[in-house]
Order: sequence, then structure tokens, then C-alpha cells
Amino acid sequence: MNQHIPYKIYLEEQEMPSSWYNVRADMKVKPAPLLNPATGKPLSVEELSPIFCEELAKQELDNDTAYVPIPDEIRSFYKMYRPSPLVRAYCLEKKLKTPAHIYYKFEGNNTSGSHKLNSAIAQAYYAKKQGLKGVTTETGAGQWGTALSMACSYFDLDCQVYMVKVSYEQKPFRREVMRTYGAKVTPSPSMETAIGRKINEEFPGTTGSLGCAISEAVEAATSQEGYRYVLGSVLNQVLLHQSIIGLETKAALDKYGIKADMIIGCAGGGSNLGGLISPFVGEMLRGEADYQVIAVEPASCPSMTRGKFAYDFCDTGKVCPLAKMYTLGSGFIPSANHAGGLRYHGMSSIVSQLYADGLLEARSVEQTAVFEAAEMFARVEGILPAPESSHAIRVAIDEALRCKETGEEKNIVFGLTGTGYFDMVAYEKYNNREMSDYIPTDEDIAKSLASLPVIPE
Amino acid sequence: MNQHIPYKIYLEEQEMPSSWYNVRADMKVKPAPLLNPATGKPLSVEELSPIFCEELAKQELDNDTAYVPIPDEIRSFYKMYRPSPLVRAYCLEKKLKTPAHIYYKFEGNNTSGSHKLNSAIAQAYYAKKQGLKGVTTETGAGQWGTALSMACSYFDLDCQVYMVKVSYEQKPFRREVMRTYGAKVTPSPSMETAIGRKINEEFPGTTGSLGCAISEAVEAATSQEGYRYVLGSVLNQVLLHQSIIGLETKAALDKYGIKADMIIGCAGGGSNLGGLISPFVGEMLRGEADYQVIAVEPASCPSMTRGKFAYDFCDTGKVCPLAKMYTLGSGFIPSANHAGGLRYHGMSSIVSQLYADGLLEARSVEQTAVFEAAEMFARVEGILPAPESSHAIRVAIDEALRCKETGEEKNIVFGLTGTGYFDMVAYEKYNNREMSDYIPTDEDIAKSLASLPVIPE
Repeated sequence: MNQHIPYKIYLEEQEMPSSWYNVRADMKVKPAPLLNPATGKPLSVEELSPIFCEELAKQELDNDTAYVPIPDEIRSFYKMYRPSPLVRAYCLEKKLKTPAHIYYKFEGNNTSGSHKLNSAIAQAYYAKKQGLKGVTTETGAGQWGTALSMACSYFDLDCQVYMVKVSYEQKPFRREVMRTYGAKVTPSPSMETAIGRKINEEFPGTTGSLGCAISEAVEAATSQEGYRYVLGSVLNQVLLHQSIIGLETKAALDKYGIKADMIIGCAGGGSNLGGLISPFVGEMLRGEADYQVIAVEPASCPSMTRGKFAYDFCDTGKVCPLAKMYTLGSGFIPSANHAGGLRYHGMSSIVSQLYADGLLEARSVEQTAVFEAAEMFARVEGILPAPESSHAIRVAIDEALRCKETGEEKNIVFGLTGTGYFDMVAYEKYNNREMSDYIPTDEDIAKSLASLPVIPE
Repeated sequence: MNQHIPYKIYLEEQEMPSSWYNVRADMKVKPAPLLNPATGKPLSVEELSPIFCEELAKQELDNDTAYVPIPDEIRSFYKMYRPSPLVRAYCLEKKLKTPAHIYYKFEGNNTSGSHKLNSAIAQAYYAKKQGLKGVTTETGAGQWGTALSMACSYFDLDCQVYMVKVSYEQKPFRREVMRTYGAKVTPSPSMETAIGRKINEEFPGTTGSLGCAISEAVEAATSQEGYRYVLGSVLNQVLLHQSIIGLETKAALDKYGIKADMIIGCAGGGSNLGGLISPFVGEMLRGEADYQVIAVEPASCPSMTRGKFAYDFCDTGKVCPLAKMYTLGSGFIPSANHAGGLRYHGMSSIVSQLYADGLLEARSVEQTAVFEAAEMFARVEGILPAPESSHAIRVAIDEALRCKETGEEKNIVFGLTGTGYFDMVAYEKYNNREMSDYIPTDEDIAKSLASLPVIPE
């Protein structure tokens, strides 16, 4: 194919996928089921339904349906910002003097600033369809809370966000975006829930944690008539919705006859990575193609590269079900790494199983190297990347430089999950050369892993 | 034409205009020339060249060339974020229940967050081509400084930004974006220039003003070997570069056989408005078509609706040439209006002349009404607009509601110049219902206009 490849490949509106792809249908070894921590038994749709919307509980447990049609109402919303562009990084290639061809799927072209909106709108839709009044959730860095606020505003649903207190105070802009979209944003721990009051009493002046915010959001959902709890990553349903990233990426590559050699994504809970790689891994599982798939995680929170594949709580507060995943232990406290969205102790069960089965590799990278890549990318490609996304940029650059040594013209595809406009405090630290790296010791990790839950027989 | 119009009309890369359009070539009454304040005589290219790059000085004075080819290097950069989408606001139409069709040209899809990048990259290119070491400029709200930083980083030019001290301190994120792109950002007034030291001495503790920052930037440019001063609005050259907005808008409309009835843009110095309307006004000037063109300005800084068409200084510091424009007087201090980019006492000479000749109308709108429109737009269209852009949204909504009354299916086109991610302090005020309106009294304006410069005979 000698045709010119434009800087940005935009699919036409009618080329947007009409179904999500459920990679579980093609997995020989299915991801392990969520367990009830009290009984050690797999959770049923009925057991999940008091917490999750019913349709979402069904999606969570459905390991068989390969293609799930995207409802028209969700497609209409998607059309406001999708198909998102697949960008040929001509300027980055030139800067690196690499023979590799670099492409990135850019998910930051919407006001939430990240891919999170893809699942937020789906979850809000099913909540509305079920006749609910609203949903509750937690947010740390704020990307998920922003996306959910936008989605709820669109469907006129009440949105209650428990925002980790330290972020609530230090990230007032994120908070105000959510409020502009009509969300009620509460600093966590609050005095509005029993668990919040208890924590405030035990730890006066605490600035909160994601685990605590999850606990409050779950309590708020289950204690209010017509509310359910929603989550922006880790879950199977979220990866299903995020498959639109990978489907569009593949459609855009196919349109120009490009065969990806390598697919790179940053990995926190796995929502972006799982969505990006699903259709490609599906081909691998069906024996139709082969790709090198790389998950990139921060060296400060290395769940895949240094964690254990075991059942663990999804949350620090231990109110959620048990999931089998690569984990550092639900009590693992990552150091102050600015890629807030990657500070998660575990990894989606789907991604974990694929990793265990050798379908993808994992790498960890250090923060300063990530910001170095982010700065270079911003300067040549004109997009200020989110710190999370910049983990993938780092490895894409490393691989492109390797191609320079070997002379290989590889097609490198990576996911650029979002923009860094609300992460300027981290950039400021980097600009001032005040940023440092932190890698947990083996002892840190062993200590945290020692308290993995015991599954009742 | 009954074909389906997509949510977003993206022109193909090869459909991007290859020339800028200079509306001056079609104007019967040319915009009045810049004058040397000392002599009262029109400035020549030679006189402008110590301050501006030579090619830009030529563009500034060229009233004849209708189409100026866009150099390939600039086109390559444009391709990273252009053609920008023309969006059909289906969701806003539905929300308003209007028979009108609303379209907006979205210029916020790049990291600078606004249309300013279109001229920044052109000015940086000509500076590089002339063999300069760098450029200096001032920035208030920070959009222009950000755009220029990105452009200079791309061409490896030194970039020195004098940022109004109050913004430097209150908008640390904007400052850090500029620094990430390698710019040197100095709070103004500084101790680095003679004028800065003088002001600091006379007014200890001053938080600065745009006028002062301009004076410092001009001094820095003229006192360093290989530097020139660049400006992001008002000038003829800037409107030339920004014509790409209007050219793409027209091409996208033509592609789908849509005839605009009304074109609406916000107006501060006129860079966006002038660029958006140029090709349409060109058709009007040549007698080929007719449009209703509306410039929207803040009621707190109403240069067109309440100012005087006269020669005035472009800057508060009175170091720049005189321009004939609608002005409130260069000493006019707008109240604390959050649309920082619209807080300018004057208006581009081109836009002013077109307004004087009846080719466009002007309206002023109040801040709270603007944020009300911004909030509605954000919630239904999924884009958080800049306060500046929201002035155009306000009038587009008003006109769409008028169509609802009359039943007219008008095609309303407006310019969405940028995003509001760095304006959350203003949104917070609105969210907290702490925002108020301010309209200058007739006495305020008369007082400010009383000190218009006297032109030497």
C-alpha cells in the first residue's frame, strides 16, 4: 500500500462500530468469577443487582456473547466525540529519526479529557433505562468523576461523587467541572455516611483515600432508594464498553491496510488497555493474527510485574467482591505517583488472565522517564498528554528507538488515553526538576501481599 | 439536499485551504493604516521591521493580495490539528426545540485550547525563516502565550512571555503549560526591563496589567539581538492567518450544500471574529451572497456597541503604533470580567471598518447570561466552552429561540474558539452563584474617551 496516510485518520460516522466486542467469548480460559467474600461462592446477577444496575450485572457475568449491540441512545452520544482520531505521529517519528511508523489512538478529544466517557455514558444509560434516580461513585484523580458527571447530565440522572478529600482540595478545577455538569461532589471521608463518620472519628483530619471513597459511594448507593453504584475501571463490563477504542483502532488501520506489529497501552485498573487490545487479542485467541502487546505500569505500583495472581478485594475498604487478579494486596499504598489513574493495587481480571496466559507482556517505567517522554511528545505532537497516557508514550518511544538500531519499520500503535490539563501540578514539579522516582522494596510488597484474603471453602 | 449531515463534518487533509484569504483585497474602504504616533504618518515596512518580523510587517501593510499561499512548513503543523471540525449541534437544537440548524466551528481541539495557534505558528515560522533567535510577547489570560510557546517549541525558537503578574500567580497551570513547551515566563512588571523596573518603583506591589506587559515585551524584543515582538490579535496579519477558520467553515458548509443565514463570533481584539467571517464578508463585498454577521462583545467592555471609531493606541502603555478602530480609550480599565480574552479596549481595524460600513452588526451580552449559556452548552454538547467563546453561544441560543417563535429554519453558524479548562475559577463563581454583571456608565466611557491621542498634522 503506497497511498498517503494522513496525520489523522478519522473514520466516518457510519463506520463507528455498532457493537462492543466481548473478548471473554474468545478466551479459552475465562476470567475467574467475582466471589462473595463471605461465602467464597461466585456472585449471581441477583446478588450483584442491589449494587449494580441489572443490565450491567448481566454484562459483568456474560462470558459468552461476543458482540453486544450498542444501544442507539449511546451511539448518539458517542457521535459527539467519536470516532476518535487515530493519529500518525509523523513529527515524533521525525524527532526520533526512527524507521518505525508510530500511531496513537487519541481518546482525549472530549471534555472529560479521557477514555472514561466511553463507559460512563453506557453505565448512565442502563441506569436511566432501569428507571433509577441516580448513581454514586468515587473519584481520585477526577477523570472518572468528570466523565460520569457528563454522562448523567446527558441522561438527566442524579450524580453523587465521593472525591478523595485531598484531591477535592488540591484539584478544585476538576471538582468545578463536575459541578458545572450538575454533579454533587462530596469530599471523602464525609459526615454523610456511617463509614465516613466512623473514619472521621477514628482518624481526625484524614485527607481520605480511594478505598474510603469507594466504601462511602457503595453505602450511599445501597442506602438510597433508586440509586446504584458505578465504577470506571477493573470490571468486565467496563472493558466491554471500552472495546470501542480497539475496534475503531483496528477499523482505521484496516482502512489503510496497516498491520500493527506492536500495541502498547498504559495499565492502571485495565480499562483503557483492555479496551484497546481486545479486538487484537481476539484475533490472537482465534489464531488469525499475532501481535506484540505491552501493558505499561508505573514502577511505583507494579501490580503485573511484581504482584501475585490471586483473589483479592477490589477496594482498600474491603466492601467490594473478591476478584482474581494480579495484585499488590488491597492494603498496598502507592507512593505519591502523579499518574493518579494508575495508582491501583490490582488489575482487571480479564487483563490478568490474558497476561497469565502469555498473550501480553508487562513493563514498568519510572515517573521521571515518563515525564521526559511526555514533554518530548507534547513539544513535537502538540498534545499535552495525561501522566497516565505518558507511560505508554515512554514505551512507544523506547521501542521506536530500538527500531532505529535494528532498522526495522515496525508499526507501533499506542493508546493516548487523555490530556494533562488538570495535571499541571505534576508537570510543574517536573519543570522545576523536583520530581523523583520511587520503587517499592520487595519487603513492602511482601508485607502487603501477606494480608491477601483467605477464601472460604 | 436531503443527505444526512453528520454530527461532525471533518474535511479531508487535502481539503485544508492552501492559501489564507486577505479580506482587505475586497474591501472598498480599506482599513486605515497604522500611524507613527510621533509623526502622525503611516508606518512603512522599514519602520515596522525593528519590532515585527519583516514578512509579517509586509503582510500587515498588504491591502491588495487576496490569497496568500500558506507555506508548507505551516501546513504540516496545521495538519496536526486541522482541519478542525464543523459540528452540527443536534443536541443543542433538541434541547432548545428550535427549527433552526446550529453549526459551530470548534477551534479548541488542540493543546493551546484555542484558535490562537493558527497565527502563532505562522508568526513563529516567519521569525525562524528570518533567522531570528526568538520572539517576545505578553499574555493575560494565557491562551496566546500557550499557543506561541507551542509554536516556538516546534520551530526551536526561544520564546519569552511576559505574563501579567496577577495571572502568573493565579493561573499557575497556564504558566506551567508554557514552561512545559520550553517558554521563559516572566511575571510582569519584572525587574528585567527598564519599564518594568520603573513601574515596580512607582507602584510597589502592583499586580501588573496587559499594557505594562506589552511595554516590557516590546522593550525585550528591541533590546536583544535577533528578537522580535509578536502579537496574537488586533493586527491585520493575525486576521489573515485566522482566515483559515472561515475558509474551512465555508468549505465544510459547501460540501454539504448548506447556506449559512447567520454567522456569529465573539469579539475581543477581533482575531477569531475576523478570521471566521472573512470569506463570508468577502462574498458580500463582491456582491455574491448575503449573510447576517454578528459580533458579540461583553457588556463590561463594549468597544463596538459603545465606543468611538477613532485613532487610538493599541496598548495601555502607549508604546505601540496608533490604529484606527472602535475604542473605549486605551486607558479604559474593564471590570473583573472573566472572559480575559475579550477585555480589550479596542477592536481590529479591519473589523472596525467592516462594522462602520454596515457589513456586520454588534451586540453586547452580560456575563451571567453568558455563563448560563455556557453551562447549557456544556451539558448538552459535551464541550466545556471558554468564557470568551460562550459569548457567541449566548447569541446563537438567543437567535435559535427566536427561530422557535417564528418557525424559521435558519442555518446559524458560530465560532467556538476554545475550551474552558483553565477558566474553572470563573465557572466556580458561577456554580456558587457569586457572579455578577457590570456595565460601565456613560461617564466611565466618556472619561476614558476624553484622552484619545491627538494625531499630529
